[in-house]
Amino acid sequence: MGKSRAEKPAAVVLLSGGVDSATTLAIAVHEGWRCHVLTFYYGQRHGREVEAARHVSESLGAVDHRLLMLPLGEFGGSALTDESIAVPRDRTEQELARGIPPTYVPARNTVFLAFALAFAEVVKADAIYIGVNAIDYSGYPDCRPEYIEAFRRLAALATKRAVEGRGPEIVAPLIAMSKAEIIRTGVRLGVDYSLTVSCYDPDAEGRACGHCDSCRLRQKGFAGAGVPDPTIYSDADEEGEP
Amino acid sequence: MGKSRAEKPAAVVLLSGGVDSATTLAIAVHEGWRCHVLTFYYGQRHGREVEAARHVSESLGAVDHRLLMLPLGEFGGSALTDESIAVPRDRTEQELARGIPPTYVPARNTVFLAFALAFAEVVKADAIYIGVNAIDYSGYPDCRPEYIEAFRRLAALATKRAVEGRGPEIVAPLIAMSKAEIIRTGVRLGVDYSLTVSCYDPDAEGRACGHCDSCRLRQKGFAGAGVPDPTIYSDADEEGEP
Repeated sequence: MGKSRAEKPAAVVLLSGGVDSATTLAIAVHEGWRCHVLTFYYGQRHGREVEAARHVSESLGAVDHRLLMLPLGEFGGSALTDESIAVPRDRTEQELARGIPPTYVPARNTVFLAFALAFAEVVKADAIYIGVNAIDYSGYPDCRPEYIEAFRRLAALATKRAVEGRGPEIVAPLIAMSKAEIIRTGVRLGVDYSLTVSCYDPDAEGRACGHCDSCRLRQKGFAGAGVPDPTIYSDADEEGEP
Repeated sequence: MGKSRAEKPAAVVLLSGGVDSATTLAIAVHEGWRCHVLTFYYGQRHGREVEAARHVSESLGAVDHRLLMLPLGEFGGSALTDESIAVPRDRTEQELARGIPPTYVPARNTVFLAFALAFAEVVKADAIYIGVNAIDYSGYPDCRPEYIEAFRRLAALATKRAVEGRGPEIVAPLIAMSKAEIIRTGVRLGVDYSLTVSCYDPDAEGRACGHCDSCRLRQKGFAGAGVPDPTIYSDADEEGEP
């Protein structure tokens, strides 16, 4: 006999609405967690990914989806929250490997994980899932395995549940996967990638630019996985694509 | 020749408007930091401490004071953010020592320190000051030295500045002080404690209750320091005090 829904243990899942976090949610659901999903609007250039997160969350059967507004954009310091800083275009893999780009948002994952920890305490979650990846990524410091390990040690001390020996496990299932592996995993678990949004800088109609790091990593991932990318890119016509 | 103000290194200081954080700010200013102060309104029962923080920050010469609104209260789970949970009154020291009270706010210091880390990156701060104390305190898990040590290790990995070897030092100058020592230190450094607010549950006129853990720890501290407590308590008349 299978466990009833009420008996399943609870997990908090961080969901931005992109490929990685959607796949992470699918993995958490597949592993049998009752998923409480958390999405943040933090002053990023566009709200489309927040809308995407809602659709992804519903389609994968999360029990609860919360959207929180965070004043992270007030500090500025990132191309994602400050219109005066340009989003880099068409960077090569060598350029990608060279350092931390202007799309980096200071301390973003620490802020997100801190809220996940608070939410986990209230819903009595035993795990927090985060879709960080340190292979096909933009070089953000808070996506690296050693960072996640440090947060794991913090989470084991930070809360009342932790003191009671029930601090949440910090699960980063994608951390060592390539983008192609992530997409193959998601396809196997039924993720509808047409609902996801990756682009840092879509046009007014919401079409992806195809040139920012996030679009390029996405395209490389779909190509590597041998799966068609359902994204509508704004320059598809120029390049003669359908 | 003294350093000009522009040459001083920058620090972020977390300020609630209570005794501990006001003293911490005085210490940071005294140690020569250019202090960027951060205060949060997170759905706590009353906004008086936020107002107190502004006065304290001005009186001690911070260069910058930011107030951020955080949706931490949306999760509930604490007497400080949920009116339906009572603030405990007149707990003895034995009761205080017995566990984590309902005024505990899930993951609060982790959320505050995460925002401090973001702010520190943007203002290029080399230190984050936090007024946690593990002697005369309410037993909150995120006030303990081992918690601060874990955040220190996280901060050394989490940001771009950390990757460049300039992650902020996490300074908790009060961690091993008694409340009386904290108050003696603050008096020596010129803190005007009449500007500070400690009470978890003041009356409609803003007078402190005198019975919550925070009022009682404050009273014990002033008594121990041999300094008059400038706080106006709502029941001062009943007890025959002036």
